[in-house]
Amino acid sequence: MSEVSELPFSVRDYECDLQGVVNNSVYLNYLEHARHVFLKEQQIDFAALSKAGINLVVIRAELDYKGSLTSGDSFIVRTRFTRKSRLKFLFIQDIIREGDEKVLLSAEVTGTAVNSQGKPFMPEELANLLE
Amino acid sequence: MSEVSELPFSVRDYECDLQGVVNNSVYLNYLEHARHVFLKEQQIDFAALSKAGINLVVIRAELDYKGSLTSGDSFIVRTRFTRKSRLKFLFIQDIIREGDEKVLLSAEVTGTAVNSQGKPFMPEELANLLE
Amino acid sequence: MSEVSELPFSVRDYECDLQGVVNNSVYLNYLEHARHVFLKEQQIDFAALSKAGINLVVIRAELDYKGSLTSGDSFIVRTRFTRKSRLKFLFIQDIIREGDEKVLLSAEVTGTAVNSQGKPFMPEELANLLE
Amino acid sequence: MSEVSELPFSVRDYECDLQGVVNNSVYLNYLEHARHVFLKEQQIDFAALSKAGINLVVIRAELDYKGSLTSGDSFIVRTRFTRKSRLKFLFIQDIIREGDEKVLLSAEVTGTAVNSQGKPFMPEELANLLE
Repeated sequence: MSEVSELPFSVRDYECDLQGVVNNSVYLNYLEHARHVFLKEQQIDFAALSKAGINLVVIRAELDYKGSLTSGDSFIVRTRFTRKSRLKFLFIQDIIREGDEKVLLSAEVTGTAVNSQGKPFMPEELANLLE
Repeated sequence: MSEVSELPFSVRDYECDLQGVVNNSVYLNYLEHARHVFLKEQQIDFAALSKAGINLVVIRAELDYKGSLTSGDSFIVRTRFTRKSRLKFLFIQDIIREGDEKVLLSAEVTGTAVNSQGKPFMPEELANLLE
Repeated sequence: MSEVSELPFSVRDYECDLQGVVNNSVYLNYLEHARHVFLKEQQIDFAALSKAGINLVVIRAELDYKGSLTSGDSFIVRTRFTRKSRLKFLFIQDIIREGDEKVLLSAEVTGTAVNSQGKPFMPEELANLLE
Repeated sequence: MSEVSELPFSVRDYECDLQGVVNNSVYLNYLEHARHVFLKEQQIDFAALSKAGINLVVIRAELDYKGSLTSGDSFIVRTRFTRKSRLKFLFIQDIIREGDEKVLLSAEVTGTAVNSQGKPFMPEELANLLE
């Protein structure tokens, strides 16, 4: 397990749906943003890689929703990063509400990198990070 | 397995991200919309239930991303609905690209209903549907 | 005024916010999608242009919100396209609810095209369309 | 002109579209969030009002897009709040990129409040703020 990173967020009202809580799809936005910030802290820039023809892609996501975020909530996304197999990496991510520290979402997000020919591979920057 | 339903979609350009493909979170939007249309065809109205204090909620989602949707693509979401346990129901959903019929996403989405006191229960409409 | 185009839509529940109506930002999604479909019908492909280094961009939007879309609503976006100046084009767009034909939004969206050096210009395809 | 408020943001990659820049609709999300934070600092809670049957609604938006936000950008939303007429209030908002302080968007957003009978009115909290 290489690194643990925590990123603070606040719910924005437009992220809530007609049930008055954050829509289930928005959690994937939070998780993605936390992964990209984590990678950037490790000098890996998702957007720059994409421009260079290297696309980091999600190939599997498992999401356990344990409670709801709502207007006014603050929370952190905790991100851990580890190797899953030769060409796959795994982000283990939790969304934890500020105040009562309740875990509202637990996620495992598996990714790989795809080169400009569409072939999966492991970029050196990520391989180094996973050592 | 009670029902199979298919709903056609077209990618909208604003759903694509800087990689030029539909962002991974948007698939959850597609799946949710297909579930709500499916339920409405069965006379179960997500928004009306919510107003009445009954919230249908996702408690787990497993998503296997097998390929990317991009600008110009049309696709269908195929939705099957079944009982998972006494208080849980399961949607088995696939996103299938038009043209080559390739399955680009396979998902299992587990839900339950929560009453106005926050207690899980199985609304009669859903129970009937699941028989 | 070169063309009038109408595109049908249905509200998707995830587009509604905690007020139970479609969030004001989502109308811009609807308008953009209708513009891109309109352009594609004229053989102008927004995504293909972008890949070729030509970006169609919005430089001004005026939006009059006259009523709210909500869960269950169907509507059309009516799009008219005209020249505004040498380098600017104008989309005049209305969102009209199905059933009572009420205009819920009137919009004027001014755009231009930017080449790969970031310079505004009028692509020949658009110029022809505007004649 | 009652108040000026500034709220810092960072672009999140999922907010960028296939042109590699923040999609034009997302600016409305930023502006809304800044307005709600501003109001909350004045003890006016958008979500709580909505639950109480009082909906603050946008009735007109004028947006001048002067430049693009992209991956990696930080920016502030500057919000000023003023009275427009007896029942209408006006937010004057700018999006200013960090670093070169360039104004990328200038907006005027007109709103009103609607009570549970759908009638426009001016809630006392807002009237006090606008004095």
